Amino acid sequence: MRSVRPARDDAGVDDDAGTTRLEAFSDGVFAIAATLLVLEFSVKGVPGPRLGHALVDLWPSYLAYATSFLTIGVIWINHHYCVQTMARADRTLMFLNLLLLLTVAFLPFPTKLVAQYLQQSGERDAVYAYDLTFVLMAIVYNVWWRYASAGRRLIGERVPESSVRAITRAFNPGVPMYATALLVAVFSPLASVVLTFAIAAFYLPSAALFAER
Amino acid sequence: MRSVRPARDDAGVDDDAGTTRLEAFSDGVFAIAATLLVLEFSVKGVPGPRLGHALVDLWPSYLAYATSFLTIGVIWINHHYCVQTMARADRTLMFLNLLLLLTVAFLPFPTKLVAQYLQQSGERDAVYAYDLTFVLMAIVYNVWWRYASAGRRLIGERVPESSVRAITRAFNPGVPMYATALLVAVFSPLASVVLTFAIAAFYLPSAALFAER
Amino acid sequence: MRSVRPARDDAGVDDDAGTTRLEAFSDGVFAIAATLLVLEFSVKGVPGPRLGHALVDLWPSYLAYATSFLTIGVIWINHHYCVQTMARADRTLMFLNLLLLLTVAFLPFPTKLVAQYLQQSGERDAVYAYDLTFVLMAIVYNVWWRYASAGRRLIGERVPESSVRAITRAFNPGVPMYATALLVAVFSPLASVVLTFAIAAFYLPSAALFAER
Amino acid sequence: MRSVRPARDDAGVDDDAGTTRLEAFSDGVFAIAATLLVLEFSVKGVPGPRLGHALVDLWPSYLAYATSFLTIGVIWINHHYCVQTMARADRTLMFLNLLLLLTVAFLPFPTKLVAQYLQQSGERDAVYAYDLTFVLMAIVYNVWWRYASAGRRLIGERVPESSVRAITRAFNPGVPMYATALLVAVFSPLASVVLTFAIAAFYLPSAALFAER
Repeated sequence: MRSVRPARDDAGVDDDAGTTRLEAFSDGVFAIAATLLVLEFSVKGVPGPRLGHALVDLWPSYLAYATSFLTIGVIWINHHYCVQTMARADRTLMFLNLLLLLTVAFLPFPTKLVAQYLQQSGERDAVYAYDLTFVLMAIVYNVWWRYASAGRRLIGERVPESSVRAITRAFNPGVPMYATALLVAVFSPLASVVLTFAIAAFYLPSAALFAER
Repeated sequence: MRSVRPARDDAGVDDDAGTTRLEAFSDGVFAIAATLLVLEFSVKGVPGPRLGHALVDLWPSYLAYATSFLTIGVIWINHHYCVQTMARADRTLMFLNLLLLLTVAFLPFPTKLVAQYLQQSGERDAVYAYDLTFVLMAIVYNVWWRYASAGRRLIGERVPESSVRAITRAFNPGVPMYATALLVAVFSPLASVVLTFAIAAFYLPSAALFAER
Repeated sequence: MRSVRPARDDAGVDDDAGTTRLEAFSDGVFAIAATLLVLEFSVKGVPGPRLGHALVDLWPSYLAYATSFLTIGVIWINHHYCVQTMARADRTLMFLNLLLLLTVAFLPFPTKLVAQYLQQSGERDAVYAYDLTFVLMAIVYNVWWRYASAGRRLIGERVPESSVRAITRAFNPGVPMYATALLVAVFSPLASVVLTFAIAAFYLPSAALFAER
Repeated sequence: MRSVRPARDDAGVDDDAGTTRLEAFSDGVFAIAATLLVLEFSVKGVPGPRLGHALVDLWPSYLAYATSFLTIGVIWINHHYCVQTMARADRTLMFLNLLLLLTVAFLPFPTKLVAQYLQQSGERDAVYAYDLTFVLMAIVYNVWWRYASAGRRLIGERVPESSVRAITRAFNPGVPMYATALLVAVFSPLASVVLTFAIAAFYLPSAALFAER
């Protein structure tokens, strides 16, 4: 975008800038949401002699932080990979993208809930909120990609169909996986968070990223 | 900007960099203000067994979050669309832009007020503060655009007059709409917030974005 | 920077990328510091019926917010204007730039002090801290520019000497003005903050920005 | 990235965009983590007449702030310097980069611990947490660079071997230095923080930055 000067290149207003516009704002929100996660950590009111123990007892916070941070990072990488296949962005995609960012930017709150309540009374509700956010995010992300790719609506001409199909295949397991994590939370909230961590750390990097290669 | 090297391209200092300079800082503020909204959410001191209920009772927070997030997102999209019609930025536009960002960056505070007080004693004052911020923002945004577009002061040569007029038409209802929301708050603070949400979710995307197409 | 590919354009590593690298990080810190200012606002524990009054009583917060936001905005605009005259950045400039950002990123704290203590016991110390931060910032900013411009050390060849001198002239009053604000605080902390606001709102935009034009 | 349009330049999807993608997200996280450090400062509940003293007593906060800010700044500068030698990024580098950002974005928390506990009961545990974060960060950063540079895996063709070796030499002392700081904390937590500050302020700028020149 930065170097596109529509007033000079076009008679009207630049059409293609759409995807860059999309990326600049999305980049910002992804990076900020990931970095704000650190604000969940707190040892407020912990007396000095107990600090060491308190820092060890914070392990649910570390787990929640790593899970959410890696998930946002992987979503961010995949987001760029998808946007690169698009020749343009239209109004609907822009709005779907806003909805996606709305769920990503919300993540620090349920992450904090997990950090505060895991292994304590209320942990199930905290993890439900956490998992539901991921399910919602996965649904919106799927709709976002399906809108762009259906009938190659926004896909660039030279992008091979195999690339588009590979991305779609990579998107398929997202919602079922996070729905499974939600189900697991009924039996064990901790296991559910560990599963969500594993999805971010193992599944997503290997499957969704550069799926075709 | 990133790739503009005035020291090489020009005898003096680059004139055109103005709009990119404007965009880089604006992008940052829009993305950060939207993402900071999540900090309004709090279940501090809620005991575990009550967490589920507390999360449901937070619905005014969810409503305020979605309303402010979508509004910032739509303002951001329109901002880029407007800036793309401009061939350059001058000192006055830069300062008006700072005022616009000052109101956008302020939004997380009244959003928090709505989240805390809606459906409780004090809700009217909270929503007044929220709506007043939107009215102010709409006024500054209008002045910003009118300054740039009056007599095509900063508009690029090849941008057709119809594009400029379409944007101006899209700006017209902004102040009246938010003033209406403020009036509605006299009777029902909740209805006022719902109206503000509707403006962000329905009116703005369809009317202001790419108004001409 | 984004589009510079040193591995292809150069035998070694890109020299010129320096100024873009400088700008990208600086842009981020300026925008975030300005937007974090909103976190100073708080009506914690204010009962509903008192909210209206409490929001009016927050006026020192509004004043401090506007003052700091506009100051950061103007510094940011001038920063880019200066960097555009530079053909390259060296190690020392990079480090001076880090020191400048360190003071800018610190600003939300003394801003919060002014917001909390102005018109109350302790206001003098709060405003001293605020003004001292501005004095420090002005000193570092001056050193930063003088390092770059002395003997045209980092200035691009085609940038006319008149541009460089105009910027230097615009930098001259910075330290004395903020030192004056600090002195005024001895007699009236409120007057000192108003003076700092006036510097950001009136003096800087007219004098420092595009000083030559 | 911003100006790369894979749909047009390539048959498939752009390979090289990898490094820019890496930089955009990394830039964001570095700048935000550095700026969030200011949130550690607090004089909550300090009565007006004691404010002056309280601000002086905050010196561990100032020390921790400056140390972390400068360290992030220097890491950021070196990060760009390294990425510029790379012709492309692959999946593994991307994931290692996420891990690096995860440790950088975590830094505001141990920084806050040092600010709160230094010179008080619990200071040793706080500084252990702080130093351990730096050790981890240095390890991940080393792995990141060694992965990219081993056998010139991701290094651009025209980048001379001497540049690569110079960077590797600059990376070598990182882990030992931070491990030393951790050891020093056993005897004196304050000396350990001062050493970490010195590493950021003196060693890194002179040695790691532009190591070859």
